[in-house]
Amino acid sequence: MTKDDDEITGPLSGLKILELGHFIAAPFATRVLADLGADVIKVEPPKRGDPVRTWGDIPEGHQHSVWWSVHGRNKRSVTVDMKQPEGIALVKRLIKEVDAVVENFKPGQLAKWGLGPNDVAEINPDAIMVQISGYGQTGPGHNRAAFGVIGEAIGGIRHLTGYPADVSDLPPVRTGVSIGDSIAGLYGAIGLLAALFEKKVGRGAPGRKVDVALTESVLSLLEGCLPEYGYSGKIRQPMGSTIPTTAPSNAYPTSDNRWFLIGANSDALFKRLCEAMGRPELLEDPRYHDNPQRVKNAKILDAEIGAWTKDFTIAELEKVIAEADIPSSRIYDMSDIAKDEQFLDRGMIQKVQDPRLGEVLHPGVVPMMSGGPAGKVRWAGPEIGAHNRDVFVDILGMDEQEIEELTERGVI
Amino acid sequence: MTKDDDEITGPLSGLKILELGHFIAAPFATRVLADLGADVIKVEPPKRGDPVRTWGDIPEGHQHSVWWSVHGRNKRSVTVDMKQPEGIALVKRLIKEVDAVVENFKPGQLAKWGLGPNDVAEINPDAIMVQISGYGQTGPGHNRAAFGVIGEAIGGIRHLTGYPADVSDLPPVRTGVSIGDSIAGLYGAIGLLAALFEKKVGRGAPGRKVDVALTESVLSLLEGCLPEYGYSGKIRQPMGSTIPTTAPSNAYPTSDNRWFLIGANSDALFKRLCEAMGRPELLEDPRYHDNPQRVKNAKILDAEIGAWTKDFTIAELEKVIAEADIPSSRIYDMSDIAKDEQFLDRGMIQKVQDPRLGEVLHPGVVPMMSGGPAGKVRWAGPEIGAHNRDVFVDILGMDEQEIEELTERGVI
Repeated sequence: MTKDDDEITGPLSGLKILELGHFIAAPFATRVLADLGADVIKVEPPKRGDPVRTWGDIPEGHQHSVWWSVHGRNKRSVTVDMKQPEGIALVKRLIKEVDAVVENFKPGQLAKWGLGPNDVAEINPDAIMVQISGYGQTGPGHNRAAFGVIGEAIGGIRHLTGYPADVSDLPPVRTGVSIGDSIAGLYGAIGLLAALFEKKVGRGAPGRKVDVALTESVLSLLEGCLPEYGYSGKIRQPMGSTIPTTAPSNAYPTSDNRWFLIGANSDALFKRLCEAMGRPELLEDPRYHDNPQRVKNAKILDAEIGAWTKDFTIAELEKVIAEADIPSSRIYDMSDIAKDEQFLDRGMIQKVQDPRLGEVLHPGVVPMMSGGPAGKVRWAGPEIGAHNRDVFVDILGMDEQEIEELTERGVI
Repeated sequence: MTKDDDEITGPLSGLKILELGHFIAAPFATRVLADLGADVIKVEPPKRGDPVRTWGDIPEGHQHSVWWSVHGRNKRSVTVDMKQPEGIALVKRLIKEVDAVVENFKPGQLAKWGLGPNDVAEINPDAIMVQISGYGQTGPGHNRAAFGVIGEAIGGIRHLTGYPADVSDLPPVRTGVSIGDSIAGLYGAIGLLAALFEKKVGRGAPGRKVDVALTESVLSLLEGCLPEYGYSGKIRQPMGSTIPTTAPSNAYPTSDNRWFLIGANSDALFKRLCEAMGRPELLEDPRYHDNPQRVKNAKILDAEIGAWTKDFTIAELEKVIAEADIPSSRIYDMSDIAKDEQFLDRGMIQKVQDPRLGEVLHPGVVPMMSGGPAGKVRWAGPEIGAHNRDVFVDILGMDEQEIEELTERGVI
């Protein structure tokens, strides 16, 4: 787990990033960059560490979650108590040594500690400061408490992720994972790399800042929703499990309580589906004559198809639909993902040796790269402060005694 | 809409990208890069153009959708018929002039035209090739037809975006927008910029390739789901509109048929909620005594809260909950987004002059940047081939006669 400076770790080899992050968004940004070879030094509070260390399943006898194995991978963990002046001084020394700082404290918090963007610009004018927050660093609402669920709702994606009112009176669904945080993290990585490009072509100004808001990151993905609203006042509504412009395209039930996606939404595909169903008479039905008619009568059509599919197990249905050559897929759960041949072939299901937990399944590195070094999983999420010696000795030039004293006083 | 080479367009000013893309993923990657100042030359088939030009609402008397105004913004559009050898030759000449090519044809399609990654490496060894596809460029399943909805299901997010079986028998919901394509696009942008960093620090090898799969991009966001499955066999299940580990935290109905998120999931917040509800006796109820108890009895508790909220309009409820200082938000639809003060203050709701449509609302550029040039909306999605003259004259050095001849023969 020590770092050889001559080793090429991936396309971002040589890029040094200080992470003053916790929870999901900033650590996800740096995970993506570390996966591609960046040297990420993650600063955590002594003893407790990043709260995500205890999120999700924690195997018996362990202190850290299985999720942490992935979320913290490829990073170096150092401990610093930022509530002590000596801790702040240490972080300042680290800032001098890196190309970028990535943080997701509440806006203003780092400035209170003398580590805000202007401080960073003074300490190391070359460092790029990436700040990820719920609502952005400016504006009348920047200081509200940020929660991923609320940011996703304000960004507009939650409203669209539900059933139409005439289908269900249940509230719109959460996208099972912290999708807003992850998307904000991806934009953070893009901003950092864009500022780096600028610097490398000789245009970089001192004190470069990137300001990513979770709400805005989500809003940026909403296709034509905003311009359509602006143009005609139309408010896009949730469409459940269907696609509004084409039918049949939906998820259908099976006898073993699974869901199966079928997209038979061209005339040719619909014909093949009717034949597979043994229902050629549906082709003559004026309600299903062409796509506009099928969209109009989608509910009855979906009920017909669902009544047929639910006599099959998911495996049987897959066979029948594959023979008819219709775009389709079971809706994968984790057991399907872990054994998918395409994922396995491309190294997307990796068995990683975690020194704490033994073998842990990790998703591989995205994006894949060839024609030069690719990203890779170099190590699993480390223990809190696992790299204190590494970083404080190699980068800051401390001696053993200093490290011991700082540890004793709880500064690191 | 012409480009002055001395103008600084954003952090990525000077970066030249050729887009051989259509639909969503590749064009979204290049939109993000163009927003940050890259010069993106988008190649489209003559007359028809990118199919997204006609997706979504098309104002009367127009040929292109309102969505296109955003999806095509900041790019230069040129037309080339890649089914003609002369068209291929033209694209090859363009490849010589750019830093990167971004494409999302079906794997193998460009190679058939002599424009595959190995061809690109030969034509311009310095160019970075970014390929976005449903399942990746390799592996036994790389050649399956790619549909966003199916890729999202295989990536695992669809299974998690639904109600538990004991709450609803409706299928898992689609995340109302093409989330998988957008996430793949973001990873495409990251891969491109990472390869560019490598090149700028002097390590770039000829023929650098980035291979982004939609399925893998989605899988990479699934928190601890894969390692948890690998460790204990646990298959993460959908949780509807709740958060599994904490209560009360849900979306509640109002009298005007809106949904309101309330997260009163600490003892202090729950106390304030009970007081706001005028139900202090709930605090004495052993079923709601602490968070573990509240999680266990979340359904009854949510029903209590929902029965209370549905006597208020959304505006009334916002007031009551704000006074109690409890984290909350209405679930925004597009009308809420368009008038949100924070979005407006930060320039996230921009009125862009579209030469076709007049004023169109665009989401602003993500991420925001300061301390140097920021990204900006320079122009709305252009007409098909709007920049043919621009690009073919300025970059390829064609004369007027050649352009006319190529146009006549339908090559451009």
